[in-house]
Amino acid sequence: MKGKTITEIQVGDFDEFSKTISESDIYLFAGITGDLNPAHINEAYAKNTFFKGRIAHGMLLAGFISSVIGMKLPGPGTIYIKQDLVFKGPAKIGDTVTARVEVLDVNLEKNRVRLKTSCINEEGKELVGGEALISPPKA
Amino acid sequence: MKGKTITEIQVGDFDEFSKTISESDIYLFAGITGDLNPAHINEAYAKNTFFKGRIAHGMLLAGFISSVIGMKLPGPGTIYIKQDLVFKGPAKIGDTVTARVEVLDVNLEKNRVRLKTSCINEEGKELVGGEALISPPKA
Amino acid sequence: MKGKTITEIQVGDFDEFSKTISESDIYLFAGITGDLNPAHINEAYAKNTFFKGRIAHGMLLAGFISSVIGMKLPGPGTIYIKQDLVFKGPAKIGDTVTARVEVLDVNLEKNRVRLKTSCINEEGKELVGGEALISPPKA
Amino acid sequence: MKGKTITEIQVGDFDEFSKTISESDIYLFAGITGDLNPAHINEAYAKNTFFKGRIAHGMLLAGFISSVIGMKLPGPGTIYIKQDLVFKGPAKIGDTVTARVEVLDVNLEKNRVRLKTSCINEEGKELVGGEALISPPKA
Repeated sequence: MKGKTITEIQVGDFDEFSKTISESDIYLFAGITGDLNPAHINEAYAKNTFFKGRIAHGMLLAGFISSVIGMKLPGPGTIYIKQDLVFKGPAKIGDTVTARVEVLDVNLEKNRVRLKTSCINEEGKELVGGEALISPPKA
Repeated sequence: MKGKTITEIQVGDFDEFSKTISESDIYLFAGITGDLNPAHINEAYAKNTFFKGRIAHGMLLAGFISSVIGMKLPGPGTIYIKQDLVFKGPAKIGDTVTARVEVLDVNLEKNRVRLKTSCINEEGKELVGGEALISPPKA
Repeated sequence: MKGKTITEIQVGDFDEFSKTISESDIYLFAGITGDLNPAHINEAYAKNTFFKGRIAHGMLLAGFISSVIGMKLPGPGTIYIKQDLVFKGPAKIGDTVTARVEVLDVNLEKNRVRLKTSCINEEGKELVGGEALISPPKA
Repeated sequence: MKGKTITEIQVGDFDEFSKTISESDIYLFAGITGDLNPAHINEAYAKNTFFKGRIAHGMLLAGFISSVIGMKLPGPGTIYIKQDLVFKGPAKIGDTVTARVEVLDVNLEKNRVRLKTSCINEEGKELVGGEALISPPKA
């Protein structure tokens, strides 16, 4: 149960997690975080917005990024230091979203790794962009 | 169901959301996002880590920030553009966390507001720091 | 709150539990068990598989069998000793599945009952077959 | 998103998944499967049973086995054919359970793999024993 150490990580390495967004994902996320914004849980309201229906919380998609970092690249034992998120587009119920994490920079001395982080829909449109800074588990 | 427009927002305005982190919050968040990192769901593992027990996902706390922005300041109709997160400390099961959003800058021309965003525990320790850029609902 | 004792159970007795499989059943089951296999939570992937869409976890259907045994035949107080499962076909979102438990054999001396256990869909197709060995509550 | 093919699997290979059982795991599992047996969700009843408190559903633990098979060994694309389960002991709320899957037999001709499957608690006690028969994804 230990993720990759810094010497096992190279620029260009990447990993992914994909999930089809369900109504229950959005509703449970709303309940857990208290973000019951009508854009997420009120179809009568949401169908009259620019997005024409309920959308997933941006932070739910960001959670998929955290999933890749915590489970796969580098995985368990990683310390999450920073995450910059740029919200570019919505995911709706039924959309399949892929969170992708790619290594941009490896600092052996400081044991830090800079990651490109994004969430992409089936059409290849980037919904969330950004970067993360993490510290992989020590050897 | 419409949040504050830009003319109703002033530098220094703030709002908050507080919640005691439950085990079920963490477990449901893990299931929704796929982040079943043992730091979150395995006490036998977590008690031997630096934090001495299971901790909440940083992105769960970030969800509380999204909750304040989407529900209160500015509220429904807001477009979430950017969120920078700095993870500084963990929240454990039973900790009460307050997400706080404060207006740093108001750009009337571009209809954009810069916010200081943080999550603080009961002892006043900042667990998550950062800033957000949002566009309030139009008049 | 006590189930049937062995003298109340006869070969041929049976009972059932039926449920329409919802997306949220599958998603919560995935989160609880950590089985986020794309066959269960990724429609973009699943529509290109042999089953042409997301399917329920076989062990979710097996949970319906456990439900009949623990709730009805014999019910509370039963000790579940063995369960053999044969996975024969998938249940998709919206399918109504009936778990059926039927008494095959009653061993008064050892207080043990052998059960035929199955899950069947609306068309009568057996999705899960198998047998269970249980010990009913004592008088 | 494809698991190991049969030529990548050898006798003795193993993988694991661990989780601390939460009350919400048991309650959600009860709700999903309909198995609201008082042994699982009624503390007033359960404290007077042999186990002296509420216990997890055996099939919830079996779900952890399915998680290892579907996610790791062999992983996505695996066809689950058979699972024999022997229930040997209970997991209570707060117990950390490890599901372990180990390759017993590889049949290249039939593309079938026999697995030893078990769930073990922190003290190393086997709670669930058994075997599975699976067909790994084709090359």
